[in-house]
Amino acid sequence: MITALRFSLLLLGVSFSRGFLNDLFDEEEQAEGVVQASKYGSLWPLPQKVQLSEVSFKLNGVSFKISDAKESTAGPSCSLLQDAYRRYYEYMFGSFKRQEGRKSRRAGPSDVTELQVWITSSESDCDSFPSVASDESYELTVDQPYAVLKAPKVWGALHGLETFSQLVYEDENGAKSINSTTISDFPRFAHRGILLDSSRHFLPIKVLLANLETMAMNKFNVFHWHIVDDPSFPYLSRTFPQLSQQGAYHPYTHVYTPADVKMVIEFGRLRGIRVIPEFDTPGHTQSWGKGQKDLLTPCYSGSEPSGTFGPVNPILNTTYDFMSQFFKEVSTVFPDAYIHLGGDEVDFSCWKSNPDIQKFMKQQGFGQDFTKLESFYIQKLLDIVATTQKGYMIWQEVFDNGVKLKADTVVHVWIGGGANDELAKVTEAGYTTILSAPWYLDYISYAQDWQKYYKVEPLNFNGTDEQKKLVIGGEACLWGEYVDATNLTPRLWPRASAVAERLWSAKEVTDINDAFNRLSVHRCRMVERGIPAEPLFSSYCPREYRGV
Amino acid sequence: MITALRFSLLLLGVSFSRGFLNDLFDEEEQAEGVVQASKYGSLWPLPQKVQLSEVSFKLNGVSFKISDAKESTAGPSCSLLQDAYRRYYEYMFGSFKRQEGRKSRRAGPSDVTELQVWITSSESDCDSFPSVASDESYELTVDQPYAVLKAPKVWGALHGLETFSQLVYEDENGAKSINSTTISDFPRFAHRGILLDSSRHFLPIKVLLANLETMAMNKFNVFHWHIVDDPSFPYLSRTFPQLSQQGAYHPYTHVYTPADVKMVIEFGRLRGIRVIPEFDTPGHTQSWGKGQKDLLTPCYSGSEPSGTFGPVNPILNTTYDFMSQFFKEVSTVFPDAYIHLGGDEVDFSCWKSNPDIQKFMKQQGFGQDFTKLESFYIQKLLDIVATTQKGYMIWQEVFDNGVKLKADTVVHVWIGGGANDELAKVTEAGYTTILSAPWYLDYISYAQDWQKYYKVEPLNFNGTDEQKKLVIGGEACLWGEYVDATNLTPRLWPRASAVAERLWSAKEVTDINDAFNRLSVHRCRMVERGIPAEPLFSSYCPREYRGV
Repeated sequence: MITALRFSLLLLGVSFSRGFLNDLFDEEEQAEGVVQASKYGSLWPLPQKVQLSEVSFKLNGVSFKISDAKESTAGPSCSLLQDAYRRYYEYMFGSFKRQEGRKSRRAGPSDVTELQVWITSSESDCDSFPSVASDESYELTVDQPYAVLKAPKVWGALHGLETFSQLVYEDENGAKSINSTTISDFPRFAHRGILLDSSRHFLPIKVLLANLETMAMNKFNVFHWHIVDDPSFPYLSRTFPQLSQQGAYHPYTHVYTPADVKMVIEFGRLRGIRVIPEFDTPGHTQSWGKGQKDLLTPCYSGSEPSGTFGPVNPILNTTYDFMSQFFKEVSTVFPDAYIHLGGDEVDFSCWKSNPDIQKFMKQQGFGQDFTKLESFYIQKLLDIVATTQKGYMIWQEVFDNGVKLKADTVVHVWIGGGANDELAKVTEAGYTTILSAPWYLDYISYAQDWQKYYKVEPLNFNGTDEQKKLVIGGEACLWGEYVDATNLTPRLWPRASAVAERLWSAKEVTDINDAFNRLSVHRCRMVERGIPAEPLFSSYCPREYRGV
Repeated sequence: MITALRFSLLLLGVSFSRGFLNDLFDEEEQAEGVVQASKYGSLWPLPQKVQLSEVSFKLNGVSFKISDAKESTAGPSCSLLQDAYRRYYEYMFGSFKRQEGRKSRRAGPSDVTELQVWITSSESDCDSFPSVASDESYELTVDQPYAVLKAPKVWGALHGLETFSQLVYEDENGAKSINSTTISDFPRFAHRGILLDSSRHFLPIKVLLANLETMAMNKFNVFHWHIVDDPSFPYLSRTFPQLSQQGAYHPYTHVYTPADVKMVIEFGRLRGIRVIPEFDTPGHTQSWGKGQKDLLTPCYSGSEPSGTFGPVNPILNTTYDFMSQFFKEVSTVFPDAYIHLGGDEVDFSCWKSNPDIQKFMKQQGFGQDFTKLESFYIQKLLDIVATTQKGYMIWQEVFDNGVKLKADTVVHVWIGGGANDELAKVTEAGYTTILSAPWYLDYISYAQDWQKYYKVEPLNFNGTDEQKKLVIGGEACLWGEYVDATNLTPRLWPRASAVAERLWSAKEVTDINDAFNRLSVHRCRMVERGIPAEPLFSSYCPREYRGV
């Protein structure tokens, strides 16, 4: 999955003019060591190969168009691309420019008048869902009078459109400009995700969509939807509607209907983003118990049930009947080839207190080793999910406890401290893996903590090249204890952008000062596109956020 | 300034019905130790004396009115009150209810149909500006058919309206309800402020107004506007327009015009909030130097000027001519009796490098003690400002350096670590003081740091009762390095609400669990009023924030 390729940046011209940047940061500020113009402009994440020249062209918003190249295998019927053309046109020129009856200024000799998008593979993937194996590469040539974006699949074209839009700047007169440029680009890691948690706080659809939108601006391609957990169960199941009826914070205002889920998935697909739901068991399931009788283990206080409940009850056949039906539904609702099955942080105290569980432990010969009971449950669950033809992701404990996993399982490493050892162990055992341990963005601290995330090198563990190829990426996790619609978006961006570049760009892209300079402008671009991405440090954006 | 009074809460009825709260937090969650209903409902900050009964009345939004009591000295011509009536009516019932042609339901026997507002003092202060000596007390009686809010001045009436609105809840059928209640209330401290910094990031007027609005919901009464600093000078001075022309991030989009400033002041006044501007000198003035030649000290590298500049140049007469004119303008633009003159964190290295300064030091017999030069400057500045008839606030260094201060000076204690010693010293010297050291809200950390702010007791220093009376309050400071329009509001609220209760409520109000329960609902109320106040912990609001 990982394509370890050499990083090469060929730069023509050292000090090409960038009116937008010069306008943004004047000399005094540069002297004070604040934001300076990067030679890579505001590209984020930095493409694998960039050739920039001093030659600058104008872009005329009235006449500029994004169109399908004649040779493209994705024509006007590819609504994914048409939708993206409109989106990027609006990002670059605003939504007001192409009005009927307005006279086109004739293209001047220095204008780029068109961006031609050329899907080269016989199968464009236009109507498919993205997968971990999707080709996301693209090549972009900006020249006069045409710019050309070539990509084997639509996924690369989406990324190339984002890159093209990042090359556009305003010159000293405010005219949209772009420099002659050649870019060849592809991601370092195939799995580049964001985890959002809609259980600890309900996240309105509007918030989810805005963050999918921002993910696309940062070339993230996986939305890990930690959709349910202890505090609430907002997923409206058609098979078991009682789960959200009883387990959501509110059965109407705080649930995701089938239509909502469908919308999130399609919104993601149109941006090259996979939606992988997580239904975490056997722990983290308090909210499941409200709508599903006997699913959770009754805890005991001495010889009497205490009235509280623990993890999923692993000793009842009804549990597995329920899981079969439930995951059958989930596997049809979510088109992605993977489901995240959780399996983290199982608290054994309730199981220990329960006499029926104790008896079962004895029967099975588990002794007092409750990890064996946990594995017993997970094993049965994995076998159930395997029958749905889905692959699964699991948190690292499942691997640690020795559960037998399918060969294509993705082990999710999250425990801080020993993450490198864990990556070594998991890959030595031959499993693919993704890293989240250093990227728990819910842990906030004063000042520029994005630098900490940026400096992580995922492959800094002891292992063979073969092992390192098994690290297919990582995810930035924003757990929900302290975030909801009021503060999630500015807390996530641009801190997650640091993770985006680490997972996309070449390993050698580690210059923290250059990153600061590019990211500062990138965050203003997100703000200009309506996303309340928070500032890195004292500074300003030409167009500040308009909300409150 | 401080009225140290006994705290007494007389409660009738232990478990009076609160439909809204019971709806919000069901039993399971209570069992899990999450939010529980406080016996004080959602009152925040907690009033000094509260008597609540089980008797519940309905409020009918169609017919309910807020009106001037016949005996009130502030009638319909008091637009401050009329404006507040509309605001609180909308908070309680939404803006859509009182439509023409809609038939009033007749008031039932269990309805509260009216809130009568009775200003009792012969001078209502309706058209005045609030001051540190303003009477903010009020008495509120909720009974059938009338509720009565009595206050000597409009300032107390504003607080009483907020309290009344906080007593309103929805019963199990969604009907607006209020319980029979008697409240007698006044602030523990007279100065309860929020510092916002519009220099490190420009804060659009919309953001300032939204936060003034929220301050009123928390009974804050001082907006400390740290308006300019090193990074930018957004204050548009009529006398010296070059200051913002050259020193703002942008001369048009990132400035506060005279009309903007006027609007902020009036918006604050209508909510009982003083606007105290800070023009910090001689340090923190890099942005001043861009538009005012020779104001800053040229730094030297060896025997040559280095091209950079240090603090205000204290040895030139032109400096004091400028300051005289500038502060004359400021004293007319800002009506408050106080101006904050800063005086913190002066870096001496530039002064030390400058041969003219060295010569002056010798002439004055200052030796190498640059605090004496700093004091020389500040002394002259204070004398200048004194001629404008304004009082001044200064950061603690000015006091520490032995500058001679007017008797009514407010010393602002901000340095962590020795804050209690500093309060003791300042009050022993007979100066009034306010505390900010423990309330730097820009320093963020994981989890519920509001509790840390809440647990501060401002009078826990060694000193006499007379000394303690000199502590007139405190301010929560949100410095601007890492906040702008994208993230300021959720970062400030409800964390600043913890400071609000500490400064308003009786000293004995320290139950952190009860505070959590009340504050959780209070934050949902702010959200419902359109303010993106962030969550305290996993939970939900009946009506979530609608933005992104």
